Amino acid sequence: ILLSLDLSFEGTLMEALLVQYRERIRTELDRAVDFWLKYSHDKQYGGFFTCIGKDGKIYDELKYVWLQGRQVWMYCRLYRTTERFCRPDILEAAKSGGSFLQRFARVQPADGPGKCAFCLTRDGHVVKVQRTIFSECFYIMAMDELARVTGDKEMQNDAERMMDQVVHWVRIDSSGLGRPPQCGDAPVNSMAVPMMLLCLVDQLTEGRAGLAGKYRELGDWCVTQILQHVQRDGKAILENVSLDGQELPGCQGRLQNPGHALEAGWFLLQYAKAQGDAELQKVAVAKFMDVPFLTGWDKQHGGLFYFQDVDGHCPTQLEWNMKLWWPHCEALIAYLMAYSHFREPAMLDKFTQVYDYTFSHFPDEKAGEWFGYLSRQGDVVLDFKGGPFKGFFHVPRCLYMCEKMLDHLLAKLQHPSALPIAL
Amino acid sequence: ILLSLDLSFEGTLMEALLVQYRERIRTELDRAVDFWLKYSHDKQYGGFFTCIGKDGKIYDELKYVWLQGRQVWMYCRLYRTTERFCRPDILEAAKSGGSFLQRFARVQPADGPGKCAFCLTRDGHVVKVQRTIFSECFYIMAMDELARVTGDKEMQNDAERMMDQVVHWVRIDSSGLGRPPQCGDAPVNSMAVPMMLLCLVDQLTEGRAGLAGKYRELGDWCVTQILQHVQRDGKAILENVSLDGQELPGCQGRLQNPGHALEAGWFLLQYAKAQGDAELQKVAVAKFMDVPFLTGWDKQHGGLFYFQDVDGHCPTQLEWNMKLWWPHCEALIAYLMAYSHFREPAMLDKFTQVYDYTFSHFPDEKAGEWFGYLSRQGDVVLDFKGGPFKGFFHVPRCLYMCEKMLDHLLAKLQHPSALPIAL
Repeated sequence: ILLSLDLSFEGTLMEALLVQYRERIRTELDRAVDFWLKYSHDKQYGGFFTCIGKDGKIYDELKYVWLQGRQVWMYCRLYRTTERFCRPDILEAAKSGGSFLQRFARVQPADGPGKCAFCLTRDGHVVKVQRTIFSECFYIMAMDELARVTGDKEMQNDAERMMDQVVHWVRIDSSGLGRPPQCGDAPVNSMAVPMMLLCLVDQLTEGRAGLAGKYRELGDWCVTQILQHVQRDGKAILENVSLDGQELPGCQGRLQNPGHALEAGWFLLQYAKAQGDAELQKVAVAKFMDVPFLTGWDKQHGGLFYFQDVDGHCPTQLEWNMKLWWPHCEALIAYLMAYSHFREPAMLDKFTQVYDYTFSHFPDEKAGEWFGYLSRQGDVVLDFKGGPFKGFFHVPRCLYMCEKMLDHLLAKLQHPSALPIAL
Repeated sequence: ILLSLDLSFEGTLMEALLVQYRERIRTELDRAVDFWLKYSHDKQYGGFFTCIGKDGKIYDELKYVWLQGRQVWMYCRLYRTTERFCRPDILEAAKSGGSFLQRFARVQPADGPGKCAFCLTRDGHVVKVQRTIFSECFYIMAMDELARVTGDKEMQNDAERMMDQVVHWVRIDSSGLGRPPQCGDAPVNSMAVPMMLLCLVDQLTEGRAGLAGKYRELGDWCVTQILQHVQRDGKAILENVSLDGQELPGCQGRLQNPGHALEAGWFLLQYAKAQGDAELQKVAVAKFMDVPFLTGWDKQHGGLFYFQDVDGHCPTQLEWNMKLWWPHCEALIAYLMAYSHFREPAMLDKFTQVYDYTFSHFPDEKAGEWFGYLSRQGDVVLDFKGGPFKGFFHVPRCLYMCEKMLDHLLAKLQHPSALPIAL
């Protein structure tokens, strides 16, 4: 059933609902931005504190490179795309973070060309290096988005060179990551890797027709890799499969991460829309959204589980049944994007279901920003606003994207003859 | 108040209580042994499955070297010290595990001399190598205890050579562990390391007067290193301190792990008793038992928290408020050992407090063995009996040691003139 867009009674109700969503989302975004602007900036050494207690107190000064890069990216994206955030304090904060990353993120060449640290001291000394690609990927996101707002061409080139290095590690030779090969450790297609690269393809090519060709084959490769995670006759998205797309034995092979699948869903839908690939648009929703949403939603207490085992064994992750903020952020983006594209009411219903859970559980009405970690029952278990894996990223990215999508939906409702929505 | 040991009315009550504890503990130990004998043996490739569901089903075939070594050790220790377990099937199982370890645990020399894998495939191929000492330490424990029951002198030598290598990594040069040094990653005195080495000193020297001299200095060094974790004017045991015994900044420095401190407590008490060090005996109880027990016990729901922050910040570990089986095992050993040694009723009261929580929450009455992971409220969250970190070790070690201590206590109650208790 396609929704009628005329201003019938139903249309008016719909509009009122979407307006209500947008107001709440806009307010939450403003509060999140204010929180991080107020508490996270290290005025002495540059960069950002990310271990921030519920009332804004810094409880650890370590600087996690993933989160430094994500915060630079988010500030720049807000600055570039949303008028009320096009402010000098936000640009300055982004530049400070970018400069901190440029000075300190890369480790000694002895660890391999291009390797970035995972964690730095407050003043930029390397604490830990992960043998994966993700610090480097968030470095690329940060530098590319910062180059877009500053017009710094050399910074863009730096991001592209790092991208070449990351793609080399993933597709040609991973030895530069520093993990010695082991005979029982068969290479795995972990969904995080092609998802991350697809996200970067979108980042690097946005509005740059000249680069679309360079990254086209990589984008398609990422899609192929992600689609290999559809298993069990299309009834499950598994986090880890073999390089030739077969199910792996054991816990690793049976692992499901509903929030991650939903994130992959909107990555795929976004890419499919840009490519005009109607079949992939359908797969993105039917497989990467509806399947994990169906199995991942806790019918007893509400909210999305963090981890599941496709055969119903108990996952070995101690936090498997907790409700984390970010899967709910990804679900909100996914279903609002699906609804914006397909206009099927069931998609809006799912958005509403996630919205209701999310906004009644995660935001801290008192001090602003969101709690990140709830028990299965929905009580706050970890009460900080920022930590080693929670920074200024999933909450504002979700709110910013949802606000934009609601703007477009409402414009369309109010002016049905306007141009099609493009996001 | 020292307990009167004559057969007064109070003494009779006490005896009845201890008999009741011993019966339950003996029954639980028998059930645990039966469970692992029945379900964990890999008759095809040797060694042990450790990922075992609540009813005995193997849900993953990976073989974790820590748990292989611990199971060999536990079988041998039971065989060697407890008459009803001096059975050929238990000895055969231990030998099979030992043989599996000897064939497969060590990784290629390219990874450094002596390095053992962390995880193997079912048929012994290396999946993962940790850049720490613990796989090697559990290899030593296994081989030394197996050598004691088989009389294999070469196996004992193998264990001692590995011990020399581990001590070299810890005290002289850690580069063989494979972790590149980073300028912001200052070396840390992590309590696990001296605890583990002290445990191995006890293992290697037990009943071998000729080796006591060789390891005496190492044992004293371990004690000194462990005592550095007493911080905040004696009011806190911190998991990580600097090499010169100062508190470290941030979450790492403020971390408390009550179960680990209690385990250190009985390691220290055991060592202090063997050395006749009265002062250390007191410190072991007052600092490493009473301090973490006071702060680590959940006054609302009962049980010991997994992690805490000494300044009351929220820990960043998602599982911080869960109740795990092993801290309760360590607390039972600690307070029964303390009571056996000092005979202060308050120590028996604490044992009883832990006993009541433990036996009403962890054992699975239906299928045997214990659940390992409860929510803060005490509900089972992960329902398997064995997993990547839960094997045949903490439960049977606790039950076997408590049974022995209760045997001695009861013998003493029933025959007050008997020899002093030696454990």
